[in-house]
Amino acid sequence: MLKKISIAIDAMGGDNSPDKTIGGIKIFLDKNKFKDDFVINIFGKEEVINNTLKKYNINSNSLNIIDSKSVVSDSESPMTAVKNSKNTSMWNCIHHQLDGKSDISLSAGNTGVLLVISRMILKMMNGVSKPALAGLWPNQNGMNVVLDLGANIECNDQNLVDFAELGSALFKSLYPKVKPVVSLLNVGAEEIKGTEMLKVASKRLKDLSVEDNFIYNGYIEGNDIMSGKSNVIITDGFTGNIALKTAEGTAKFITKNLKKSLTENIFSKISLLFSYFSLKKFKEKLDPRKYNGAIFLGLNGPVVKSHGGIDSVGFYHSIDLCYKIVKGNLMSEIKNNLKHSRSV
Amino acid sequence: MLKKISIAIDAMGGDNSPDKTIGGIKIFLDKNKFKDDFVINIFGKEEVINNTLKKYNINSNSLNIIDSKSVVSDSESPMTAVKNSKNTSMWNCIHHQLDGKSDISLSAGNTGVLLVISRMILKMMNGVSKPALAGLWPNQNGMNVVLDLGANIECNDQNLVDFAELGSALFKSLYPKVKPVVSLLNVGAEEIKGTEMLKVASKRLKDLSVEDNFIYNGYIEGNDIMSGKSNVIITDGFTGNIALKTAEGTAKFITKNLKKSLTENIFSKISLLFSYFSLKKFKEKLDPRKYNGAIFLGLNGPVVKSHGGIDSVGFYHSIDLCYKIVKGNLMSEIKNNLKHSRSV
Repeated sequence: MLKKISIAIDAMGGDNSPDKTIGGIKIFLDKNKFKDDFVINIFGKEEVINNTLKKYNINSNSLNIIDSKSVVSDSESPMTAVKNSKNTSMWNCIHHQLDGKSDISLSAGNTGVLLVISRMILKMMNGVSKPALAGLWPNQNGMNVVLDLGANIECNDQNLVDFAELGSALFKSLYPKVKPVVSLLNVGAEEIKGTEMLKVASKRLKDLSVEDNFIYNGYIEGNDIMSGKSNVIITDGFTGNIALKTAEGTAKFITKNLKKSLTENIFSKISLLFSYFSLKKFKEKLDPRKYNGAIFLGLNGPVVKSHGGIDSVGFYHSIDLCYKIVKGNLMSEIKNNLKHSRSV
Repeated sequence: MLKKISIAIDAMGGDNSPDKTIGGIKIFLDKNKFKDDFVINIFGKEEVINNTLKKYNINSNSLNIIDSKSVVSDSESPMTAVKNSKNTSMWNCIHHQLDGKSDISLSAGNTGVLLVISRMILKMMNGVSKPALAGLWPNQNGMNVVLDLGANIECNDQNLVDFAELGSALFKSLYPKVKPVVSLLNVGAEEIKGTEMLKVASKRLKDLSVEDNFIYNGYIEGNDIMSGKSNVIITDGFTGNIALKTAEGTAKFITKNLKKSLTENIFSKISLLFSYFSLKKFKEKLDPRKYNGAIFLGLNGPVVKSHGGIDSVGFYHSIDLCYKIVKGNLMSEIKNNLKHSRSV
């Protein structure tokens, strides 16, 4: 019998939890009812969890509940987290990996605290300089992996090279049939563009580029992130965070104005009757819940951060992401990539 | 009699010139046919210009043609530009300001060369550390001025403070009835977020914030650039360039997918009949030609760079921008702002 995929979930983090986290688990169980290759370990106040499971009418052999008396507060600062968060649901959820009982951890709680205690408990992988937050970002041909989205506001060339190895390993684990094509985000595509640090990182990535690990495709500009030219986009955490949020803001601006236009008069309202299903499909494609979940890479175990304000559908997508990451053997893909980059 | 607004236009820069530049001038003349408060100085090969004016049936007393035998090539590098671009249409167009014969210069030519020779000819303003490229960017309530969009890939706190003074002066000259509200682009809105350099710049802007010049509104995240919370957004040229292009790429991705959705079946096609005018208005609001023109600030005279690939409608918007900038007394607004910041 194959070892089951074991996912640790902090059920108490984020707005409206554990209602939304258990709601997400229910969707995941429903969608995977014919599979028995996974176990979900739920961390939180046992009584509350049990009541919520009952409320959702969930009765599954694939669930373990591990009682955790306290919860990391949203106002907790990363500085004091280490002292205050021991034995919270978040802490126990990460620690479960250390005991070898889970393969991946998921929380919708306080991001800063999650990053700090994950790093403290799981420790950095040998040979990785800094951990990074990676996210999924749609492009014209499918999906991008983009990192760093904000874990490190200042980076050097070694960090960016590490991010390329980590990001392409993540891409391979999620999309095993597509070749990872790596680009560095820059202000121009020509070799002379950008900071000296980017030029050094670019030269190193060119030397490391081998078909088995990833293809290095040079610099990419912001307008090409979604064009599909490359699918693993590497940048420092400051730029990555601003690019991601600018894209979110732009999407919101456009859809808000589109909605306003399509409801402004009787003719445009009639048009909605005819375009209802097409617009619904369009909306679904852009639904941010589908891309929910940032992956913390570079530690001795993967940790996924769900958006705190997301609903149960969004939380379900994070659970699904965890399942796929473990099924795709992320950790051994990372080790393979690092072995190659360290031997060049 | 008031002094006329005098605009210098390099007619030869960019794709399909002088056809598109003269086409843009024609639209400007048509839209302003009852005004006589401006003069347009056209720089380029006299014969070609005259033929194109004839082709467009333009006959106006508001035009001067200044013959320039050569043109800056698109492949010219900024490094060699100084040697090779003397007496080109671009060079002469900038130089006209130095002679006091024009108030502003406009070109759709080679960006790198334009920045280098503008700086060389016009020189930095006293007390400004670095010049910046500013652009217009729509927000939910109206318009933003955003800078730097790529002139300086690395900046210090003094540069950002200067950009705030320059950007809010530009905002006041374009929108005299709206108060400039300045924000620094950052990875979070809380004071502890961002690099040390940003924290110093933020503290300095807080000290400088006075109603007469601008209100400082603290940090802003990427998703709030278009929300209208602030209207003068300050960042370094690397981040600004990536944010702008990411927004462009996102807008393109969304509109492309929307178009696909609305033409995918007979029902959605019918819906287009009913929503035609609403969607047209929506499209017009997002039309990038309306925001064409980046303003090079911090020199002893303003220079506007039109997108090289834009058509005559886009070029017209750049001419209109030049007219408004001079009418709004940009240079004296900048001097006022700088006087205040230098005395604090």
